[in-house]
Amino acid sequence: MIEPRTLKGFRDFLPQEARKRQYVIDTLKEVFSSYGFEPLETPALEYQDVLTGKYGEEGDKLMYKFKDNGDRDVALRYDQTVPLARVVAQYRNELSFPFKRFQIQPVWRAENTQKGRFREFLQCDIDSVGTTSTLADAEIIAVVATSLKKLGFTGFKILLNDRAVFAGLPQKAITIIDKLKKIGAEQVKEELKTINVAETALDDLLNQQPTGMLQAIMQKAQDLGVGAEIMQFAPTLARGLDYYTGIIIEVEIDGYTAGSVAGGGRYDNLIGMFTNTQIPAVGLAFGFDRILDAMGTLQLFPTDLTTSKVLVTIFSEDTTRNALQTASLLRDNGIATELYIDTTAKMEKQLKYADQKGIPYVIITGPDEMEKNTVILKNMQSREQQEMKIEELIKYLK
Amino acid sequence: MIEPRTLKGFRDFLPQEARKRQYVIDTLKEVFSSYGFEPLETPALEYQDVLTGKYGEEGDKLMYKFKDNGDRDVALRYDQTVPLARVVAQYRNELSFPFKRFQIQPVWRAENTQKGRFREFLQCDIDSVGTTSTLADAEIIAVVATSLKKLGFTGFKILLNDRAVFAGLPQKAITIIDKLKKIGAEQVKEELKTINVAETALDDLLNQQPTGMLQAIMQKAQDLGVGAEIMQFAPTLARGLDYYTGIIIEVEIDGYTAGSVAGGGRYDNLIGMFTNTQIPAVGLAFGFDRILDAMGTLQLFPTDLTTSKVLVTIFSEDTTRNALQTASLLRDNGIATELYIDTTAKMEKQLKYADQKGIPYVIITGPDEMEKNTVILKNMQSREQQEMKIEELIKYLK
Repeated sequence: MIEPRTLKGFRDFLPQEARKRQYVIDTLKEVFSSYGFEPLETPALEYQDVLTGKYGEEGDKLMYKFKDNGDRDVALRYDQTVPLARVVAQYRNELSFPFKRFQIQPVWRAENTQKGRFREFLQCDIDSVGTTSTLADAEIIAVVATSLKKLGFTGFKILLNDRAVFAGLPQKAITIIDKLKKIGAEQVKEELKTINVAETALDDLLNQQPTGMLQAIMQKAQDLGVGAEIMQFAPTLARGLDYYTGIIIEVEIDGYTAGSVAGGGRYDNLIGMFTNTQIPAVGLAFGFDRILDAMGTLQLFPTDLTTSKVLVTIFSEDTTRNALQTASLLRDNGIATELYIDTTAKMEKQLKYADQKGIPYVIITGPDEMEKNTVILKNMQSREQQEMKIEELIKYLK
Repeated sequence: MIEPRTLKGFRDFLPQEARKRQYVIDTLKEVFSSYGFEPLETPALEYQDVLTGKYGEEGDKLMYKFKDNGDRDVALRYDQTVPLARVVAQYRNELSFPFKRFQIQPVWRAENTQKGRFREFLQCDIDSVGTTSTLADAEIIAVVATSLKKLGFTGFKILLNDRAVFAGLPQKAITIIDKLKKIGAEQVKEELKTINVAETALDDLLNQQPTGMLQAIMQKAQDLGVGAEIMQFAPTLARGLDYYTGIIIEVEIDGYTAGSVAGGGRYDNLIGMFTNTQIPAVGLAFGFDRILDAMGTLQLFPTDLTTSKVLVTIFSEDTTRNALQTASLLRDNGIATELYIDTTAKMEKQLKYADQKGIPYVIITGPDEMEKNTVILKNMQSREQQEMKIEELIKYLK
């Protein structure tokens, strides 16, 4: 007998959790589509040489790599940016540019699970490829603002920076300054000293004004409906990565301190990796697990994610046919109806089932009701029940 | 320079195709949910011993197996039934039974690509676990009928059989009889002879009436709204597999001859594999690629899968702000609006972009219009354009 178990860092999503995930995905897709972003799907497996060497030493180490049955070196999708670059190169003549795509697929990384990291997680990216226009950057800001509003977040900050503010600073210094929030100003200055960068570098940065480019982007984002008070210049923001070439974006939720829920920026030197040409791009990744966590913390999930409005129970074998026809009639009238599908179960078990699934109403039809052509409707919250004609029932549930 | 390419048997889905897939998935999910089926997600990677030995010799051969970075033997999801069995065993106390779940995730099989098979494809399953009630079987039939109607199929047949009709026949004979449609009656009889089964076995089967159980299921499906004329007793149907224990289901689309679009049945001896107990189940798998193919052949996809109704173009740098505000205003009025995000592109290129993406209307605002507070609306089908006030525009597009 094999023990039923899941691999460390991998997760099963039972219905309750899966429904929440689906709700967030659907909401985001709707917003992305409303801005003209289009879906893209790429395979889970890629030729290994397509992926390796693109994510640094760490990435190559964490990648799931193996030989397939045909002895090909393959690897599991590690992110969605390299596959996007591959697609842009491979289907250049079939795509419309600027190419605005969203992609929501799992990626796999052999992360250290002791740090609470997952080895399979959903990435959720939007990117605009093929233009250096600041309009593209502003639109990304508008999309993230609209998305978060649509998910129910009422307070959040979009932190913005321009890579240009770091001009003249070595990458090592930027990495240190990027940690300001985590380690504080004193510590940043200490660490800057150890790499021989003047500790005034930090204050110089903090005293900067938004660059002209950033101001232009923020103005355009405002014209697109993003409130000025939501956007905040963050001159120390670097997001760890050295591949941003222009704007850098990070989003924080008020009252949620576990970390940022989205981040991105302009990266004009990556997408061309398969073509030896420069293909400009700007994009943003939503931290899917973070967003779910924040929504849970702030209680933003709708309470009625269960789709069924009513459970039609089976009173006895003799009344089954009546129950089936009632269920069918309710469905025909557009009422989300679930039927209890076991004719042998006691009524108590059926009511418990409705409770567990969060179905708000239950219909019971015994032989007496059947004769009178009525049903009993039970409100599962108040536990009250009333007898009514089927026409009344339809009206009531609608 | 690495050549951008995909592995044989793996596919990229560019927006046009991805949108069609999304449409089918969304439609199916909606129907599944309306019957109270709930989403389940399981990991792409499983411990190898959870999967091996469950799919026969062929399955073990086609499975993607490898050692992960921690030297664990792992394998990629090969189907969704074994993971379902694992979940039922692992979370027994957290689930509500009958457990009705749908699962729509990719699976991986190292199939022979020369036969046009894919190595990564989406599986789309519904299963009811934990009851032997014929109501569960009838409901599966109702779900598939409703799903196909909702997708736009007007003519289809649900072929039904009961494993019991094969009583007394060896598995080898069943496998031969199952090929009736493919090889014809004469050939079936020839082959039966070679394994010493009387050739009358076929005629005996063809002369059978539906079993009592099948009649009960068909009656219940009718009570649930499935037309009697859609269901057809098919006494030679076995679906190749030897694990069905009751009803066997297969669905064919009128006018589509490439093969069945869905199949399934009752399998009461599989789900308990991790618990040493019998856990009854009935389910059905939609052939996702088949359904897409059939819908394409029969032209059932809505023509307006492109979400944007209108593209707001950028006439010049000077009019950009006006364009942004127009786009924002249209969106606020619930009109799906896309903005062209490159301020340097010629109008011709922008119009071509709208054509390529199938956006039906385009808005052009030059300096003259801006001054008059009007816009030009271009119908991309008729190529006609008219000037109108912004309030008229909103009314028109709504």
